Amino acid sequence: MEKELFQKLVEISLVNKKLFLPGVSIDCVIFGFDKSSLKILLLRPININKWGLPGHYLRKDEDLRDGANRVLQERTGAGNIFLNQFKTFGKLNRTEYFFKDYPDDLWHKQRFVSVGYYALIDYHSVNPVPDVLSDACEWKDIKELPELMMDHQTILEEALLAVQRDLNYKPIGLNLLPEKFTMSEFLKLYEIILDKKLNRGNFYRKMTRYGILEKLNETRKGGAHKAPDLYRFNIEKYNAALENGLQESW
Amino acid sequence: MEKELFQKLVEISLVNKKLFLPGVSIDCVIFGFDKSSLKILLLRPININKWGLPGHYLRKDEDLRDGANRVLQERTGAGNIFLNQFKTFGKLNRTEYFFKDYPDDLWHKQRFVSVGYYALIDYHSVNPVPDVLSDACEWKDIKELPELMMDHQTILEEALLAVQRDLNYKPIGLNLLPEKFTMSEFLKLYEIILDKKLNRGNFYRKMTRYGILEKLNETRKGGAHKAPDLYRFNIEKYNAALENGLQESW
Repeated sequence: MEKELFQKLVEISLVNKKLFLPGVSIDCVIFGFDKSSLKILLLRPININKWGLPGHYLRKDEDLRDGANRVLQERTGAGNIFLNQFKTFGKLNRTEYFFKDYPDDLWHKQRFVSVGYYALIDYHSVNPVPDVLSDACEWKDIKELPELMMDHQTILEEALLAVQRDLNYKPIGLNLLPEKFTMSEFLKLYEIILDKKLNRGNFYRKMTRYGILEKLNETRKGGAHKAPDLYRFNIEKYNAALENGLQESW
Repeated sequence: MEKELFQKLVEISLVNKKLFLPGVSIDCVIFGFDKSSLKILLLRPININKWGLPGHYLRKDEDLRDGANRVLQERTGAGNIFLNQFKTFGKLNRTEYFFKDYPDDLWHKQRFVSVGYYALIDYHSVNPVPDVLSDACEWKDIKELPELMMDHQTILEEALLAVQRDLNYKPIGLNLLPEKFTMSEFLKLYEIILDKKLNRGNFYRKMTRYGILEKLNETRKGGAHKAPDLYRFNIEKYNAALENGLQESW
């Protein structure tokens, strides 16, 4: 198995040197929301007992943003995903130790500066696909994350800060919630992103004040309790409110 | 002159290949404020009839952020500058045409993904120094900018958007205004950054409400009109207000 992986890496290395720009990589923090938990999509590299973010290199013939979209498309099968560059990671030793037992001219062993993108995706539309160097690609609850490789924990934390900061300026809710959702789901999403409890009444009043919610004549059936009302976003008003930024400190 | 420059570039190219990571560059948008105008520091490359942002490459032995600090230090002589990474630029053809008449293996001709930093600096503390490929390094008023090379106009505009977005979250005023300033100067700075007129009374009331200003028992002497009052920031209250974000849409 070790030998097989070694051979595979050497082969990939030769191809990568032809196709990709040296020095630059892309890492994607892909968020999905399922009822009451925020999840991110992770890969388990072969022979490594840690998980990592989906990522790749930048093709010599593509724009940086197209590279990020390619990663998303290949790992999730989904197109047209909300995608936002948030930070570039260039610490000296962020990758070095990772391939330390491999030859120095291995493509993967060079120093990479990695451009971080976060993506918001409809959790239920995704069919996760491992890449050629991984044996699993799975959604993980951000409250129960496995150990991450290299500086991926840092990248993930910075992505969460970016999503927090963008709550007032970008359609985070629209891109993570299903088309019809309950007020509890909406509140829960904000509580997870902000990592704190919010007052339900205040939250409802704030959101109502912006007029971004439309109450539907439907309820969510199937629970043990009284069926909760369903809402959807008024996209026009949501976008208009985001243009000035929601005036909330949360 | 052409031949001299060519020779110089070839020499630098050989050194750069040893010292720097391929594929990655750094561009710095350095802002300074002088009484009533916002300025950025620009370089005029030898033999090119356009101006460019101060920038460089990433040393193989330094962190990305240290590379940006190195650029700032070398061009301005100032240390300890407020520095913020805001976006990375990776369009396919952002640099290509620039060295089109030079040999393909010239360091400068390769494709670079450029990491953008903006810096806020005390205008009066700076002694601008051109780099080895430039014959001028000067402050330019952002209202009267010369033509910029490559995608530097785009990088500058994105930096301004980042500063706008950060007004409520980072000590922009503190880092651009002199220690003692008039209300007119403070207002003017915001008007230039936001590119719109603000109501003086509203602006004053908003800022007073946060308690971030201290009125001094001094006035600015020397003008034709009544000497205006001087203010300084209460840094503790400024930082406390920024922690939650100022709740202003401007």
